Order: sequence, then structure tokens, then C-alpha cells
Amino acid sequence: MSTKNQPISGNDLARFSGPNTFMRLPAANDLAGLDVAVLGVPMDIGTSWRSGTRFGPKQVRAESAMIRPYNLATGAAPFDGLQVADIGDLAINTFSLSDSLRIISESYDTILKYQATPVAIGGDHSITLPILRAMARKHGPLALVHVDAHADVNDEMFGERETHGTVFRRAYEEGLIDPAKTYQIGLRGSGYSAEDFSEAAGWGFQHFPAHEFWGRSMANLGAEIRRDIGEGPVYVSYDIDSLDPAYAPGTGTPEIGGLTTPQALELIRALKGLNIVGCDLVEVSPPYDPSGNTALTAANILFELLCVLPGAVYR
Amino acid sequence: MSTKNQPISGNDLARFSGPNTFMRLPAANDLAGLDVAVLGVPMDIGTSWRSGTRFGPKQVRAESAMIRPYNLATGAAPFDGLQVADIGDLAINTFSLSDSLRIISESYDTILKYQATPVAIGGDHSITLPILRAMARKHGPLALVHVDAHADVNDEMFGERETHGTVFRRAYEEGLIDPAKTYQIGLRGSGYSAEDFSEAAGWGFQHFPAHEFWGRSMANLGAEIRRDIGEGPVYVSYDIDSLDPAYAPGTGTPEIGGLTTPQALELIRALKGLNIVGCDLVEVSPPYDPSGNTALTAANILFELLCVLPGAVYR
Amino acid sequence: MSTKNQPISGNDLARFSGPNTFMRLPAANDLAGLDVAVLGVPMDIGTSWRSGTRFGPKQVRAESAMIRPYNLATGAAPFDGLQVADIGDLAINTFSLSDSLRIISESYDTILKYQATPVAIGGDHSITLPILRAMARKHGPLALVHVDAHADVNDEMFGERETHGTVFRRAYEEGLIDPAKTYQIGLRGSGYSAEDFSEAAGWGFQHFPAHEFWGRSMANLGAEIRRDIGEGPVYVSYDIDSLDPAYAPGTGTPEIGGLTTPQALELIRALKGLNIVGCDLVEVSPPYDPSGNTALTAANILFELLCVLPGAVYR
Amino acid sequence: MSTKNQPISGNDLARFSGPNTFMRLPAANDLAGLDVAVLGVPMDIGTSWRSGTRFGPKQVRAESAMIRPYNLATGAAPFDGLQVADIGDLAINTFSLSDSLRIISESYDTILKYQATPVAIGGDHSITLPILRAMARKHGPLALVHVDAHADVNDEMFGERETHGTVFRRAYEEGLIDPAKTYQIGLRGSGYSAEDFSEAAGWGFQHFPAHEFWGRSMANLGAEIRRDIGEGPVYVSYDIDSLDPAYAPGTGTPEIGGLTTPQALELIRALKGLNIVGCDLVEVSPPYDPSGNTALTAANILFELLCVLPGAVYR
Amino acid sequence: MSTKNQPISGNDLARFSGPNTFMRLPAANDLAGLDVAVLGVPMDIGTSWRSGTRFGPKQVRAESAMIRPYNLATGAAPFDGLQVADIGDLAINTFSLSDSLRIISESYDTILKYQATPVAIGGDHSITLPILRAMARKHGPLALVHVDAHADVNDEMFGERETHGTVFRRAYEEGLIDPAKTYQIGLRGSGYSAEDFSEAAGWGFQHFPAHEFWGRSMANLGAEIRRDIGEGPVYVSYDIDSLDPAYAPGTGTPEIGGLTTPQALELIRALKGLNIVGCDLVEVSPPYDPSGNTALTAANILFELLCVLPGAVYR
Amino acid sequence: MSTKNQPISGNDLARFSGPNTFMRLPAANDLAGLDVAVLGVPMDIGTSWRSGTRFGPKQVRAESAMIRPYNLATGAAPFDGLQVADIGDLAINTFSLSDSLRIISESYDTILKYQATPVAIGGDHSITLPILRAMARKHGPLALVHVDAHADVNDEMFGERETHGTVFRRAYEEGLIDPAKTYQIGLRGSGYSAEDFSEAAGWGFQHFPAHEFWGRSMANLGAEIRRDIGEGPVYVSYDIDSLDPAYAPGTGTPEIGGLTTPQALELIRALKGLNIVGCDLVEVSPPYDPSGNTALTAANILFELLCVLPGAVYR
Repeated sequence: MSTKNQPISGNDLARFSGPNTFMRLPAANDLAGLDVAVLGVPMDIGTSWRSGTRFGPKQVRAESAMIRPYNLATGAAPFDGLQVADIGDLAINTFSLSDSLRIISESYDTILKYQATPVAIGGDHSITLPILRAMARKHGPLALVHVDAHADVNDEMFGERETHGTVFRRAYEEGLIDPAKTYQIGLRGSGYSAEDFSEAAGWGFQHFPAHEFWGRSMANLGAEIRRDIGEGPVYVSYDIDSLDPAYAPGTGTPEIGGLTTPQALELIRALKGLNIVGCDLVEVSPPYDPSGNTALTAANILFELLCVLPGAVYR
Repeated sequence: MSTKNQPISGNDLARFSGPNTFMRLPAANDLAGLDVAVLGVPMDIGTSWRSGTRFGPKQVRAESAMIRPYNLATGAAPFDGLQVADIGDLAINTFSLSDSLRIISESYDTILKYQATPVAIGGDHSITLPILRAMARKHGPLALVHVDAHADVNDEMFGERETHGTVFRRAYEEGLIDPAKTYQIGLRGSGYSAEDFSEAAGWGFQHFPAHEFWGRSMANLGAEIRRDIGEGPVYVSYDIDSLDPAYAPGTGTPEIGGLTTPQALELIRALKGLNIVGCDLVEVSPPYDPSGNTALTAANILFELLCVLPGAVYR
Repeated sequence: MSTKNQPISGNDLARFSGPNTFMRLPAANDLAGLDVAVLGVPMDIGTSWRSGTRFGPKQVRAESAMIRPYNLATGAAPFDGLQVADIGDLAINTFSLSDSLRIISESYDTILKYQATPVAIGGDHSITLPILRAMARKHGPLALVHVDAHADVNDEMFGERETHGTVFRRAYEEGLIDPAKTYQIGLRGSGYSAEDFSEAAGWGFQHFPAHEFWGRSMANLGAEIRRDIGEGPVYVSYDIDSLDPAYAPGTGTPEIGGLTTPQALELIRALKGLNIVGCDLVEVSPPYDPSGNTALTAANILFELLCVLPGAVYR
Repeated sequence: MSTKNQPISGNDLARFSGPNTFMRLPAANDLAGLDVAVLGVPMDIGTSWRSGTRFGPKQVRAESAMIRPYNLATGAAPFDGLQVADIGDLAINTFSLSDSLRIISESYDTILKYQATPVAIGGDHSITLPILRAMARKHGPLALVHVDAHADVNDEMFGERETHGTVFRRAYEEGLIDPAKTYQIGLRGSGYSAEDFSEAAGWGFQHFPAHEFWGRSMANLGAEIRRDIGEGPVYVSYDIDSLDPAYAPGTGTPEIGGLTTPQALELIRALKGLNIVGCDLVEVSPPYDPSGNTALTAANILFELLCVLPGAVYR
Repeated sequence: MSTKNQPISGNDLARFSGPNTFMRLPAANDLAGLDVAVLGVPMDIGTSWRSGTRFGPKQVRAESAMIRPYNLATGAAPFDGLQVADIGDLAINTFSLSDSLRIISESYDTILKYQATPVAIGGDHSITLPILRAMARKHGPLALVHVDAHADVNDEMFGERETHGTVFRRAYEEGLIDPAKTYQIGLRGSGYSAEDFSEAAGWGFQHFPAHEFWGRSMANLGAEIRRDIGEGPVYVSYDIDSLDPAYAPGTGTPEIGGLTTPQALELIRALKGLNIVGCDLVEVSPPYDPSGNTALTAANILFELLCVLPGAVYR
Repeated sequence: MSTKNQPISGNDLARFSGPNTFMRLPAANDLAGLDVAVLGVPMDIGTSWRSGTRFGPKQVRAESAMIRPYNLATGAAPFDGLQVADIGDLAINTFSLSDSLRIISESYDTILKYQATPVAIGGDHSITLPILRAMARKHGPLALVHVDAHADVNDEMFGERETHGTVFRRAYEEGLIDPAKTYQIGLRGSGYSAEDFSEAAGWGFQHFPAHEFWGRSMANLGAEIRRDIGEGPVYVSYDIDSLDPAYAPGTGTPEIGGLTTPQALELIRALKGLNIVGCDLVEVSPPYDPSGNTALTAANILFELLCVLPGAVYR
């Protein structure tokens, strides 16, 4: 048994019991000594259609109680190699999107003074812009693996430049990400014109629309991305709506024809070896998830991300 | 049959059919000639607990299809005396609470150039502050009948002065309402100190906590308020969470021990004769209303309010 | 222990187990020897707003599994005095309302050749017209206790004369009921004109709108009706929407401001002593009843009706 | 920007706002000048298991608000080439299936006097028979692309010859469709005998059971059908239950082992170039669709059908 | 501001954020210094109809986030006078009811070595028997205020003597409670014979059936009980199914005709002054509570109980 | 038409009508003459996460009403060759897991005195251990086809050796199954160490993890297993959580990345020819299945199992 933090075992305390931390890991206020800090960013004021993602962190943590520490398919035992804790939620301002983005960015600046890799549970996708700002201040421009139904490269929405639909245009404009190493995976649905995609392609973004992968494995794509990125710092932003609504009904802007959970797992597992310096899982909306299974899926994706973080052990 | 606008009859077109206007009344873009303008203010970015009220106007209109034009209990036939239309939704900025409040206020300034009494379907309760600002610009300080579980007289929430919990302190400070003719009905639950209520009482607000009416009729209270107010202009702000969660489960901040729908109807019916110059019904959150009955209740409350507007005919 | 049919005890077989008959009574194909025949009429093609009542009988039976045979409040032990069985469902034609009404009427003619009192689980309220036709053929015009949010005395709906909204006008016109002994209880909501009620009042129908009983007991009303009716044959038609939507959310045309379950029980318990020759419980719509509690309420109302049928024993 | 009708942009009015027309297109009463008329046929009295499709048109329209006018995968911009409007609902008789079928047929006769291609949102599948009758009166026998879990070729159900299960036998008998150009896609599940399928095969119907496509693309099938049909007029009838219940839970008679949404999109996209003169999407039942995603899927399928109508522009 | 533990304020951290402790109080492992210890007993293996109460503690805590520390109706400020913390869940054996009861009893023995008053969140009602055993070991026979739809005085269920339906017979037999000071409030529904109640009345239990309080306040009853009990130690066991299903739909064995939440609050508020040495709130079943409002109601009842514990301050 | 028992036809009695037996087959108390006995084992006290499977048999039977007797894909007509009846539920002790397991085993001993093949509807997976005990007493060690997300080979859970997670370790230890002919299919998710799988592999169990079949047919696997097993007696235990939560949301311990329903059907259909002497379908939890489609899927899987039982006719 590792001396590192371990989830409470389902044989020690019934799974429907215990703290509402991610995977029932210890809560921590102090980041010193942590390799990974799981945190929540409960927010939905950046959403354009259904709201409810403010309850995402709470519900994802609740459903994560079912996950055990060893990945049977890959042999990963992340808690053997990484000291992981749940550091709670950021204290966003639920009445102001702009102020919340400021709080997130400043909170990340503080977190990033430590060695811990931050793993965020959203919240809507607008949280990723201030995270990237802080990440880039520390690491410089990042490679980005962005799994999503939507490119989120609008210029404005209702005159606002910082919403869940404009994140990656802002990130590009501000030099937070390396456009040549930006991979947008799972895109699909409807838009306003071909420029919705082609403009970002002109910046260097690489697009992998969902329909090119219907009925196919995503393992090869993941492997190519891993080789293409090489050694530099990578951020992974995972929007649960990249999945088909059959697999993730509880989200704010579902699009049909999306990824399957096998594809999601193939993709993440292939990213092993990348220098992932942060990641997030966003857009789980519990009010639209009566069975709780979207949150369960999100929790599993977060677990798979933990399994490919640098330092995760395999046995 | 009146020559005025009438709801589409359920015998002409099946109730689950037809336009999604309030009570299937005609839609109108032009306010000229209208006595009453029903409008939606779809918004939930001012909420502090559960969101979802952005879908309130749509759902309240959907459920209003079941209401017929004649009030069997009171004999009111509002559409015989009043020209009523649904003028659609205000184009709020879903990413900015402050900008949305500005839009609401300016939109009301435009509406109030006409004779039509505006009847708003929320949205969260933060919409009432900009409405009152515009109303007061036209009418001067208003008498206020405020039915709600919460006094909404906080000073700030997360440093913000304009949220769904600060509306009536702002209205008082800005002189939008006559504190001596401000009636807060249905208050209950928990707070931070006795000052939550006593401070506003000091301004002149009159409080009628829910527990003083448990098991009692509210007809007398309504009659007293009507006499007390007299002839001046009155605004009625109706928060669906004034009702007990048994009667209105689908709302953002439910409080137990609330009003019954009979009490709600007794209260409104007793207001007949007041010079109501505007009203709203707020805080219906469809994601928490699986049966649709909270929206149905809201639609009926709006119908009862139409029945006591000046000019409503009884037969 | 009676030698008569008894519900399976919850101590013999877990309540979530066993046959889906009413109260887990024996199923019977033969009516000979029965005092009471419980039957289902699964139908929703007579509804005008939400459908789903076709699953009413199934769901009411499912929830009835929780009811035990002795009425703790009244001392009634209906199965000690009455031989009761569940005779299954009528084989209606789900694609034709008119043909279904014919089938119901003919089926009742057959049932009524026996001594068993038929207790019907609907289905929408249109089933009551063909039932009354058969009942009147046997008993002559009946006294009628009709508990409902709606008077159901329309002349036509979409040109159709036999729907869930025209039942009691047809029954009056056809002489199936004694208008002077017809009691409509729980009426409320909206209509098209005062004639919606006053016309039927002119025929002799007695109206007891819900709002006259807000906050009051219904025991006295029940007692008055019992005295007023006297000895003749009585039919009781119980629409679940007579109850407030707080108490019975799962129904097709809910109206706010309705009866409470205590009022429903007070009313029925006061009917003890009447010569009830048949009854029904209609308009439970399971798709709008996520908790199952509307069906549970309906099952309890049916049990209370069993408790006041002639021959029920009290101990 | 085209001068033709365009959906309200999500950047002009929040998506949860605005009219409940399909994709928030303009409503129209006049068909003159329209290339495409979207209409609702709200009905469930032709269903044999779960009801609720009467609310299908309303819910499909509500969820269609999220779709933008440009198809990112195919480049289709249907509103650039086609003048499209929502002409509301047909005024069916909710108490009579046979009368409703008559109304639908006559309404279509009126619509078809204009040039507009009718695109119907059901309602249950029984609406397609009267539609085909009117279509055949104008165009002669039609090629038919019928996507469905069920062949709907029963002779009678409860003695009725016109229900949601008998549509295509009647269409064949009446010569409304060209049996040699009738393609039934997605069939599966259980029946009464092999004749359920083989009889229609004897008429010339071509069957493509779902299980032959498990794990395979449907693009080739679509291409073959397109070639096989050639130039003549085609009707496309799309039953949402052709999809697997994982993808479309909210329907009346779900069958496991069905199509995926990628397959649905592959099939429709391959139909580009056909002379489609009308189409429908049927059997969405909102009460069984708590997340709303079945209606969202249906709205997207309708959008994809718009994208392959003659006259749709690609850019 | 008190130096005692306080709930996290909704103005410091958004309510949908933070730890999942009761009212977001601090978690504590050490009972030393606590006046009140809130704990969960997540269990449903003692239930006889619907299960799901194993998720009760988690959901009640989640909904308790909305409660603020001051009781506006009564002036109670429990956290000013009492040091309260959430000590987490008991580690019951989810596969064995008998072993779980043993664990509960032993855990309480440990807790009761400290001064803290234990406040338990169930779980099904079977948890109360082992609690009473430990309480009686410390305090001797207790007065008991038992609010419930059911008397729970069965002798056996399926041959088992310790289930959620046998608790208070066992407690009587074992001398854990003073039968002359045992008050059962809210009883109703159906049973097997009059002895269901009369036998326990013979032991001295005092019964207050729900129907005797329909439409009446419970304040007087509470006051009488308070006087009757006097100074001795009291245990309060609160089954959420004492409430009418309209007020508390999410429970395992709902019975119609129950208490209202106003009655629940009147009763508890009147108990102020009793020497309450422990209490519980049981039988909240989240799977049957789609809106979450039953858990919200339970959380409020627990708050009201805190407000009447010895040592609670009023201001 | 066979003279054997047939399901009630949907053309004779509407599908939402009739008895709640499996596929509306006749109920039977006497097993003499039966080839197949369908029975329910309603239980959830062996579950470790979400409960609710106690309502599984009732809900699976309810949804099975939609299945017709002929398998269109395979030509199977099981009721032509097999006399099948529904023999109701086993009378388990809902308060004691260990006693329930004893009851199940003894009940099966009684059933197995007859020729009927028992087909069980669970209930949680703990029911399979006592079934295997009885089966092995009659048949000796059985080949086992075990389709499940979990291997269920824990040694203990909370010190208990007989739960839904320990079934197949006990079966191995007790010699109930032939480990060399034990096939575990669909395994996935997380565990505690590689030994979770490797230990059972050491016993001879053959593992077919779900991820090895992503995007592939399972027909070949089924064919290999059929060949490998040969002539001996086989038991098939089908846990609904083998399916992906997209296909079967309503279960107690869902795991993402699971089988599709096409894979489930391919697998079962390939088992034709095996000497299946018993089977079960477990872990359907209706409270987590709002659409009812998980129960529908389970009912179809049971039908497909009937289609491959020895004696099933194909036509």
C-alpha cells in the first residue's frame, strides 16, 4: 500500500457514505507536497442554452465515489505515484462572469506557485480561458488538446468577448496556446458559415470533426497527437458535450453524432507520456442528468486523465 | 364575443397546438392600442442557488395554454375589457447581469411610452429592480405588493449590489417605491439576524410572514392592503417561491412552510380595485419542475392578476 | 380471518412482489359470487391536454400494493364483509373513442348481470358515460356524486359529443342521472362563461366549487349529501384532478386551488350508508407522476370507497 | 446575408427566448412564395403503447432553437436557397383518429396547391397515410424512403384499418407509393411471423433491417437508394424510433438494437440530389424524454432533411 | 460573531459550492468540545417498500446548504450557543441489517461518552432502535416524541424482529422508553386490525393520529407534550413520512392525509425547553425526490430541531 | 397457432392492459408440464451502490408487454416449441440477505424437481449464488456464461462473503461451476489491483474485457464459446450493467465503455445450440430508469435468451 493519499475503499466505508471529495480522496487546504490538486469551479453564468453546470462539481464528486484506484484496462495506479487531494471549490462570484474569470485566474496563479498539477471540474467552459491565462504565465504558450462538440472560437456573444463560446479565440489572440499544437477533437453540428472552422484552421488549429471518426477507433489519433506535441507543456480541456448525448445527456448544449465513451477512453489513454500540466472537465449539467450517469462519465474521464498524468504508476 | 384579442379556444385548436404565446393570445410587435402587454424576461444569472429560470417564460407560456378566458370563481372576463397581447421576450445579455438590467430598464422605458400595462414573466427576481426604475420614472414612487419567501433586502451578495437578493433595498434607496406602502407577504425561513427583517421594517416596509397565515385565509389581508394603498399606482411583484414547495416545487430557492395556492388566489382577488400599473411573476425554474405544474401555477397566477387589472370586466 | 378474498399480506410476500392486481387481491374471471369487481379501463384517447391515462390502471394497481386491509381511522374492514376480486381490464379499442365507449357500455351490461358492484380504474373521464348508460339500464336514473375540478358539461369538443369534457351533459340529456341528486364537488378554474356552470345548475345540478371549501372540512358536506340522497342507487365518479396538483400532480388537466387529500377522505367517509351501486376513479396519468404518489393517492381513494360500499364491515 | 427567411441568430436573441417556431424561423400563414413549409401535426391517438406524441411538435420546435443555419459537416446552407417558414399546426380532431386523418389529408390538399414542400413534425405515424394520399393526388405514386423500427404494414389493429401500424399497407393498396421504390430501413424487433416482412417484400418493398448495419456506415445504402430512385418524386418518412433507444429514448414503441445518430446522418446526407417532395419526422413523445434530447435529435434530423431538399445551397 | 463553529455563509462561498457537511458546518473527527454532533446513517436495508434511503444523508446535507444560521420566525440562533459539527457517517455494513444495528449501537456508545447531543440523518427507521439502546444505557428510559405515519410496533416482519416496522415495540419491550411518555404523532393509513394501535395504547403510548389534526394547528399539542414530559431526557424521532406526500414525496412508504410542514414546524417549535438528548430524521429517499425538495424539507426540520436543543440561543 | 401458452396478442388486448406477467404469458402455480418457468427474485439488499433492483421484476414484466412472439431477425418462435409460463416471485426475506439466499436456493431445489428451465428476473446479482447452488446439486458443475461489467469475485465485502460482488468466487470455491468453462464477458472499469482479474484467470476463468470488443461484433466470440462448451449444462447469468450506461442507464453500478445492445444480441444469438439449463437477468433498477427503457432492454434480452433455449423452434 502506498503511503500517498488513497481514496476511501468501498470495503471500508459504503460508497454512498463519506466525504463528497473527488473519489473520496482527502480534502486539503495546503497545496505543499501535492502532485495533483483536484478542484471545482462551480459556475454556469457563461452558458448560452441550458444552465445548471453550477452543480457540476458537486455531482461529479458524488458519482466519483464508485471509482476504485486501479485502472483494470491499462494497469494505471495513479495514486501509487502521485499525491492527489481535493482542494475544494474556487470562490467565484456567481453574479458576475467577468469577475469570476478574474477570480479563477488569480486563484490559479496562487495554485501554480506550487508543484501540483491542477485538475478542474467545471462549471461551464468559460472557466478555461482564465485557467489558460494563469497556465501560460507560468509555462508559456501551451499545446492544447481540446475535446469538444464546439470550437468555441466565436469573437463575441451578445457583445461579450469572454463566454463559453469564445474561449479559444481569446486564447489564440492572447498567445496562451501554440496554435500549431492546438487540436480540436469532436467538432460537429451547425454554425453560421464555413469560416466558423476555417478561420481557426488558418491560425494553425488542427480540427478533427466527430464525423470523421464515426465507427472508428480514436487510439491512432491520440498516438499521433502525442508524437506531434513532443515534450512541451500540454493542457487538456475536455468538454463533456464532445460525447454523444446518448452517452452524456446531462449537458448544456448537446449535439448529436458525437463521440462514444470508448472513443473518449481510447483518446485519453493514447495521450500517456505527454507533459500534461493541467486539465479540466467541463459542462456537466446535473438538472438534465436524471440518472446521474453523465456525472459518472465525467468522473471516469477525470480518473483516466489522472492515469496519464506524468508520474502516474502502472502495475 | 368581444372584438378584442382573445385566446385561441381549446375547441378551435387542440391545446397542445398553436403558438407559444401567453394563453395563446396574439403576438404583437406594436404596443399601440394595447391595454396589457405580456412579455418574457428569460434570465437566471441573478440566482444564488438553483438556476434554470431562463426557461421560465417559455414554460409558463406552454402551460398557460390550458387556461380559458373566464374566471369561474370571480366572474372576471379580462379579455372582454382589456386588449392584451404577448409582445415576446426582452433581448437580455445572457452573459452579463449588469448589462441585462440596463437592457430591461431601457426596454421598459420604451414600453411605458405606450398605455399598455406591462406584465412580465421571469426570469429571476433581479429583473424587478430595472423594471421598478422605469416604472418610477413614469409614475413616481410606487406602492408595492411583494409576495415572496424572501425579503430580498440584502445590501450586497459577493460584492454585487444588483442581484435577486438585493432588489428591494435598492428600490428603497433609490426612492422607486413608497416604503410606507410596501407590503412583503409570505416571508419565512432562515437568515443571518433579526435585522434581516427589522431594518426594512424601520424604513416602513410592512411584513406579513407566512407563519402568521398558516391555516388562515388571506382575503382579509388583501382587503386591508387595498384600502391602505388607496388610489395611487401599485406594482405587484410575485415570486413563485412565496408558495410552499408542495405547490411550487420548480423554483430556485424554495422555503418550506409557505403559502398555499388558495391563499395566493385569495390575496390577488382581494386586490381588485387597486391601480395596478405593472406586475411580474418570477423564479419559475423548469428543470426542477418535472410535472410542469409549477409553470401551470404561475400561469394561473398571471391570469388572476390580469383579472384584477384596471379595466378587467366581470360578468 | 375471513374466508373471503384477502389482499396478500406484506408479511407473506414483500410488497414489491406478487401479482399486479388491485391491492394484490385475487384475479377473477368469473363474477359469480363477487360482491365487488375491481376493473381497469385503460384509455386516454378522450383527453384534451396531457395524455398518459392509458397507463393509469396499471400504475394504480402497482401502488395499491402498499395498502393493508384495515382502515385505521374509520375501523372499516371491507374485505371482511365483501367478496372482492380484480377482474382485469376491459378490452377497449385504443384507436377509436366511439368504439371504446360502445365496448365499455356492453361490458358493463354483462358485468351488471351479476351482483358485483363495479369499481372502475380509469382511464380518462370519458369512460363514465358508457358506464352510466349501463348502470341506468339496470338501476334507472342514478344519484351522482361527482368529484372533479371540471363540470364536464360541454356540449361538443371538436364536434364530438362524447369526450372527457361532455360526460355529464350527455348523462343528463339521456336521463341516466337524477339532476336533482347530482352533486358536483371541487369545481374551479377557468371557463368560457358563467353559463359553464349556471346552465347545469338550471337542470338541477348542485355545485360545490373548491374555493368555498378552502381551509374547511368536507365532512359536513358529505353528511348533507348522504341525507339528501336517501335510499336510491348512487354512482360516485371521482376524478383525481379534483385534488390540488400539490396532492395529485400526475393528471391530464390539473387546476390549482383544489381539494386536499384530507378533504377527499372526509367527503368519502361521510358517504357511508349510501346505496352506492358503482364508482370510478379516473384521470391518473403516470407519465406526469414521477414519484408514483398520484397513483398511490388514487389507490387509497379507491380503498376508502370500498370502505363505504354497502356491506363493508367495521370493527 | 440572404434576403430569405433566416432563423433568429443566437447572438441576437438568447436561444431560450423568442418564438416557438422551428429553428425560430418566421411564422407564416400564407404559403405563397414559400419553398418549404414546416408544420406540426400534434396527435397521439393512433399509438398502441406509450402515448405523448401530441406534444411532439411543440417540443421539437423548442429544442430546434439550438440549431444554427449552416451545416458544418456538409456545407449546406439551406436557408440561402430556400424560403422556409413555419406554418403552425394542423387543427386535428383530438377525439377522433379517422376524422383527424381526413383533416390532415384535406389540409395537405390545400398546402399542395402551393409550391412549398411540406415538412411535417408528428405526432404519431398514422399522420403519414393521409399525407401520402394528398401527395399522390398531386404527384402520382411516390418513391418512399421509410426509416423506422417497424414496417407498419399490419392489416388491422383492433379492427381499425388506419393506425400507426397499418400505414404502409394502406399506402401500397391504394397505390400511393411505388412498391418497387419503397425502402424500409432500420426494421427490427419482434413480430407475429415471418410474413410480417415477407409479404411486403412480395409487393416489392425493399427491407434493410437494422441488424444488417450494426457497426457499419449507412452512407453506401443511401447512395444506392439515391441511384435506384432516380428522378421521380420521393417522400421521406422518418420515425424517430428507427434510432436505438440510447439515442432516442423518448418515443412510444422503442426497440433495442437500432440505428445510431451517425447512421441517421449518413443516410440522409447521401439522399442529396433526390427529388424529395415532402417528408416527416414522427413519434417523438416528450413525456418519455426527460432530458429533451430526443426532441433535439428530431430537430437535427429535420434540419438535415432541409439540407438535402432540392434547392438547398452548399457553400 | 460567535467564536463557535458557523455554517459557511452564502456570501462567502456560493451555496452550490463547498463541503457536503450539514449546513456546510465544519467536519470534525473529535467529539471533544462539541455540544451537538450531526451524523449520517446511510442505510436502506430495513425498508419494506421503496428503497433509496441509503442516499438520504448525502442528499439532506446537499440541500441543507441553503439554510442560514438564524431562524427568522423564532429568533433562534443555534450556532451562537452550541458548538456543532458534522462528524460524518457511521460505517454500517450494507449487506447485513443485524450487523448494521450492532454497529450503530456501539458507535453511539462511543459518541455518548462525550457531551455532544447526537443528531442523526437516516437512513431508514430501523436505525432508531440501536440508537435508543445506546441512549438508554446512558440516560435510562427516555421520553419519546415519535412523529411518523406509522406506529412501527409490529412484532415481526418476515420473521425478523428488527426492521423499520418493529422499532418501537422492541424499544418498549426492552425498557428503552417510558411508555407513559411516548407520543406517536401523525399516525394514519391502513393496517391489519384495530390492535395495530390499541395494543400500544395499552402499554401507555399516546397516539395522535393525523386526521385529528387536519386543518388545525399543532402548537397546542406540542405545548401539552412539553408540559407532560417535564424535565427528563427526551428523544425525538422524526420520520419524514409523517408529512403528507405533497410535502415530502421522496420517501419509502408514503401515506396520504398527513401533516403539513407548518404543522411540523409548530410541533417542533413548541418543544422548546425539553431536555432533548438526541434526535433523528429518517426515511428520506432521494430516488423518489426528483426536485430535491424532500431533502430540503428534512434539512429544515433538522435545523428546527437544532433550534430547540438545550443551549440554543434566541436573539 | 400452437396449442402452447402464448403471450396475449397486442391485437386482442391493448399492450398497456392485461396481467403483469412476463410478455403477458399465463401465470402458473404448477410447474408440471412447463418447459420454461419465468420467475422474479425482487431484491436489492445485496447491492453496494444504488439500490432499487427490488422493483426490477415488476418493471421488466411491465415493459415486456411490447414484445411479440416471433423474432424477426433470427426466425425464432420460442413459444411454438416451449411451454412457458410466469410462476411469479420468490418470497424472499427483504430484511435479511443471508436468509433470502437460503430461500432462493431452497425454492430452486423445488423448481428443479420439475423439467422446467428456470429463467430468473432479478433483483441484484447476489441471487445467482443460491441459484447456482441448486443448479449444481441437480446438474453438477456448470459451464457459465457470465456477461457483466464486473467479475464479482471479491472475497468479502464488509466482512460478508455472500453479496452481489462475491458471487463467482464462492461459486468457484464451492465447485458449482467448471472454471475452465467460465466466460466473463464485458468486464471493465476500475478495481484495486491486477489481481482482481488475474487471480480468477488462474482458476481458469476466461475474461473478455469490454474494451477488446469496442467497435467489433460479438458474434464470433459467441460462436467460439458455443464450440468450446460443447454439450454440457450451461448457465447464463446476464447482468444488465454489462451494457454501456447509454443503453442501460437504470442499474446500480454502471460502468462506462460497455457493450452495446447489438453486441448483446449478437452474443446471445450465437449461443444457440448450447444446453442452457437456466439463466438470469439481473441488476435492473427502475428508480434510475425514468424512461423505462432499461427494463425494456432487459425484457428483450430475456426474450432473446428464450429464443436460444433448447427446444425453441425457428420458422
